[in-house]
Amino acid sequence: MNTPAVTALDILHAHEIIKPYIHKTQVLTNSTLNNLFKCELYFKCENFQKAGAFKSRGATNAVFSLNSTEMKMGVATHSSGNHAQALARAARLRNIKAYLVMPANSAKVKVEAVKGYGGEIHFCIPTLEARESTLEEVIRQTGAIEIHPYNDARIIAGQATAAKEMLEDIPALDVILAPVGGGGLLSGTALSAAYFSPSTRVIGVEPEMAQDAFISFKQKQLVPSVNPDTIADGLRTSLGSLTFPIILDHVSDIITVSERSIIEAMRLIWERMKIVIEPSSAVPLAGLLEKKIELKGLKAGIILSGGNVDLAALPW
Amino acid sequence: MNTPAVTALDILHAHEIIKPYIHKTQVLTNSTLNNLFKCELYFKCENFQKAGAFKSRGATNAVFSLNSTEMKMGVATHSSGNHAQALARAARLRNIKAYLVMPANSAKVKVEAVKGYGGEIHFCIPTLEARESTLEEVIRQTGAIEIHPYNDARIIAGQATAAKEMLEDIPALDVILAPVGGGGLLSGTALSAAYFSPSTRVIGVEPEMAQDAFISFKQKQLVPSVNPDTIADGLRTSLGSLTFPIILDHVSDIITVSERSIIEAMRLIWERMKIVIEPSSAVPLAGLLEKKIELKGLKAGIILSGGNVDLAALPW
Repeated sequence: MNTPAVTALDILHAHEIIKPYIHKTQVLTNSTLNNLFKCELYFKCENFQKAGAFKSRGATNAVFSLNSTEMKMGVATHSSGNHAQALARAARLRNIKAYLVMPANSAKVKVEAVKGYGGEIHFCIPTLEARESTLEEVIRQTGAIEIHPYNDARIIAGQATAAKEMLEDIPALDVILAPVGGGGLLSGTALSAAYFSPSTRVIGVEPEMAQDAFISFKQKQLVPSVNPDTIADGLRTSLGSLTFPIILDHVSDIITVSERSIIEAMRLIWERMKIVIEPSSAVPLAGLLEKKIELKGLKAGIILSGGNVDLAALPW
Repeated sequence: MNTPAVTALDILHAHEIIKPYIHKTQVLTNSTLNNLFKCELYFKCENFQKAGAFKSRGATNAVFSLNSTEMKMGVATHSSGNHAQALARAARLRNIKAYLVMPANSAKVKVEAVKGYGGEIHFCIPTLEARESTLEEVIRQTGAIEIHPYNDARIIAGQATAAKEMLEDIPALDVILAPVGGGGLLSGTALSAAYFSPSTRVIGVEPEMAQDAFISFKQKQLVPSVNPDTIADGLRTSLGSLTFPIILDHVSDIITVSERSIIEAMRLIWERMKIVIEPSSAVPLAGLLEKKIELKGLKAGIILSGGNVDLAALPW
């Protein structure tokens, strides 16, 4: 086993740092879904989190971990979605600048949210190359510090606090299911389970259309996605050099699900639980619908990662 | 002042009866909405209630208030919506039959929900006359007891428990806003405020397109709606002989809102609070959007009445 880049103390410390700025989100249950899947499901509602997603945890930890010299020139990242909002919000809380490189085709609602938090947006064409080169240029001009959306120990420690809170509220979970994109949430979840509830297994669930984590996990080597195209827009990223080894060491299994199941699971949660979640949040429950995970009689936590969705373009 | 048909003891008793069968729903807050309206808003989430609406409170109280003779032949009502589901569910909990007269054009999802609770559906053509005559015929044939959706003291006492719970969780509310259709929720809310928190004002909010309560309240005489046609499908009914006098005595004011404001308020709650509510639930916040209620600096409770909405036919 590799020495993890994030220790138990890092997670405890992150939680203390971010507590004044984030919600301790609720854990919801639903008797219809419990009956349907013949198990006890506990939903950690990060869709109710500040800025609408768990990303506020990592971004707030990263921004508030900077020392006064580091923070002076502000922070920067490229993101089309939740990380950009979370970073802009965290920067404003610390009264520093945030530079967000966003693809020109980003959802208008997300662009408006970033502006609402006072972030300075630099648009680029929607390719990874353009995003990276534009970010480099912004950093060269401004001296801002890059805060990567997931391949950063401070981010992983921050995302880990969601599972830590859930395990404090619902002890003795048999398993936790989390969606996997770049692996910040999944690696943090796996570390919190390993440190604070070692008997709890962690399973990652990924869209088939962006199955780099599944392939990397099975082959035990990092294989990035090629043109991932899933409705779960938060999960189109590939694992990073920091998240992958943690996942290899601490995650029990990774499974994949179809687009159709993701939409069905999303609708099931909206209809039965009366809450708004984004497609990425529905990915773990899609694994139950496809019967790829057997939970009969078990206590299972599911992290609902976020609730930022375009209400005018729902997938049904 | 008339002697109310529902006493404080009736409400306390109703609450004890129904507690094992309903959710004590959460009260949510949202900092964006508080900033927008410059007040403290507390949302009582009856969209999370059993069967998806506050109607479970009244129906459960009515069904569990029947003695063993009364309950023998089952219960019956006509309803296109939440009361039918709530009554079917309550009847199943007590192991008696429920006969639901529903217009043939009822939403499929509501018909399925009633069937899911084991209710026996009798379809009729979608006019009030047909609903009433079909119900009469069903009662004649079965001997079932009619449980009216709102003009019934047991129903009013049950609906009153939502405001009672909210006042227990959030004391010293300056005002409570509730939507008004037949007046079961509004009259119950006004009674709970009068009995348990006399300094709390209660304001009813109604769609302009179904403004019988507004007109009746201003004219101090019952004037039923003619062809109400609002998106707030739970509020198309008219006040009853039992709900109207309670509202006259204990409600501070009734205001009306446009269809456009209802849709805007509904979307605002979905986007900002990440919860699914039906149009009727959005009616009170629409009153704030139209600046017809001034709440600056006040603590205001808003009852979100339900979350049963057709996700395939959203109004935006």
